[in-house]
Amino acid sequence: MHKKLYQAVFDGIIERIVGGEYGPGTMLPNEFDIAANFGVSQGTARKALIELEKKRIVERRQGKGTFVTLRTPENSLFHFFRLRDKSGAQVVPDLSFEDVKRRAASTKERELLSGAPDQVFEVRRLRSFDGTPLGLETSIVSCALFPGLLERAPLPNTLYVLFQQAYACAIISAQDSLSAGLAREEAGILGVTPTTPVLVAHRQAYDLLERVVEIRHSVFRTDKVNYSVALN
Amino acid sequence: MHKKLYQAVFDGIIERIVGGEYGPGTMLPNEFDIAANFGVSQGTARKALIELEKKRIVERRQGKGTFVTLRTPENSLFHFFRLRDKSGAQVVPDLSFEDVKRRAASTKERELLSGAPDQVFEVRRLRSFDGTPLGLETSIVSCALFPGLLERAPLPNTLYVLFQQAYACAIISAQDSLSAGLAREEAGILGVTPTTPVLVAHRQAYDLLERVVEIRHSVFRTDKVNYSVALN
Repeated sequence: MHKKLYQAVFDGIIERIVGGEYGPGTMLPNEFDIAANFGVSQGTARKALIELEKKRIVERRQGKGTFVTLRTPENSLFHFFRLRDKSGAQVVPDLSFEDVKRRAASTKERELLSGAPDQVFEVRRLRSFDGTPLGLETSIVSCALFPGLLERAPLPNTLYVLFQQAYACAIISAQDSLSAGLAREEAGILGVTPTTPVLVAHRQAYDLLERVVEIRHSVFRTDKVNYSVALN
Repeated sequence: MHKKLYQAVFDGIIERIVGGEYGPGTMLPNEFDIAANFGVSQGTARKALIELEKKRIVERRQGKGTFVTLRTPENSLFHFFRLRDKSGAQVVPDLSFEDVKRRAASTKERELLSGAPDQVFEVRRLRSFDGTPLGLETSIVSCALFPGLLERAPLPNTLYVLFQQAYACAIISAQDSLSAGLAREEAGILGVTPTTPVLVAHRQAYDLLERVVEIRHSVFRTDKVNYSVALN
């Protein structure tokens, strides 16, 4: 099987998902039709589908077919929100404060975000758990890519679901870079002293085309929750 | 395709890997032979191999065959050691101090470790990078599972390679639980003040049979490195 062949099918399917031809949750044609469609063998079509499934871009359902993965509030939270309580259970946080504004992008933001936007939306949200402040998340996205985001506020709990449903922008992966810091200027809003240690996460989130569409800066208290990582 | 069928083949292959019949790096029989061996269809054998590959228990090499994944110092470091420098590059740490001792297991350790061992080895190691202390790692393993570990000291940089090569124990996954803390009693050995924020990681590492074979407590300075997480 020629590597470039299945890659071409893989890329072709991605293009159709991004273009909206295969929307979130829709069923893809079967292996046989994909093979005919792209003029490749069924083995090559299968290999492309396996790779798409590995990246969780599609899901195979036994005896039913292959579907474009639909970001739901549940799976979005499960994949991208890594806080767990001390017993290891998924934390389902509340939003207790939100501030959305439009502003000029910093040099760094223009550098990192796809499309090098001049204007960005900054979404600042406080997450709480059991009535206690948990963390402050600041998301930065391009105004060009998410027009009208400001007018949609208050935004839903899981931004990535909104990105997919309202903007056909599916976040499929993210890179979190974690460090330890002190609460300092965030101490007040987090309800701790300025010298309390906090977990600081810098995120870059990628869409189907592997473009950086969101950068996010989060500061979490870890007295009640931990950031959980599965290494496989 | 019956789900339980491929699962039986999957489990059967795992058993043979753990039993040493299929050693690290060896080639598995082909789909056809596996199918004949387990009395299943080739599709079922293929499905089992795909699942083994997804879990990185085996690796398929184009045009060559399917091989039992060999933990090398490189891939072990890549999968399980998540520290990256500020540019995002993999940090290859040095070992600058090691202390291995045998002691009675705590109640918590007996509870967590597979086999509920009475005696454990505690491996305490300081990792450095560019001559600067980076983090203190403390690994706890069962004496029954790793006989003679103490006599093997000084231990190699990547413990998991030793576990696989000397004890036929392949670590295939781990769960890290991260929080922020202050250096306190580790300040001296880490070369920072006691009020410096540090990243604290609690790990449970699993072998092929999904047993917890190591628990690990690490404390890292994050002034020069970050803990990097890929969310897919």
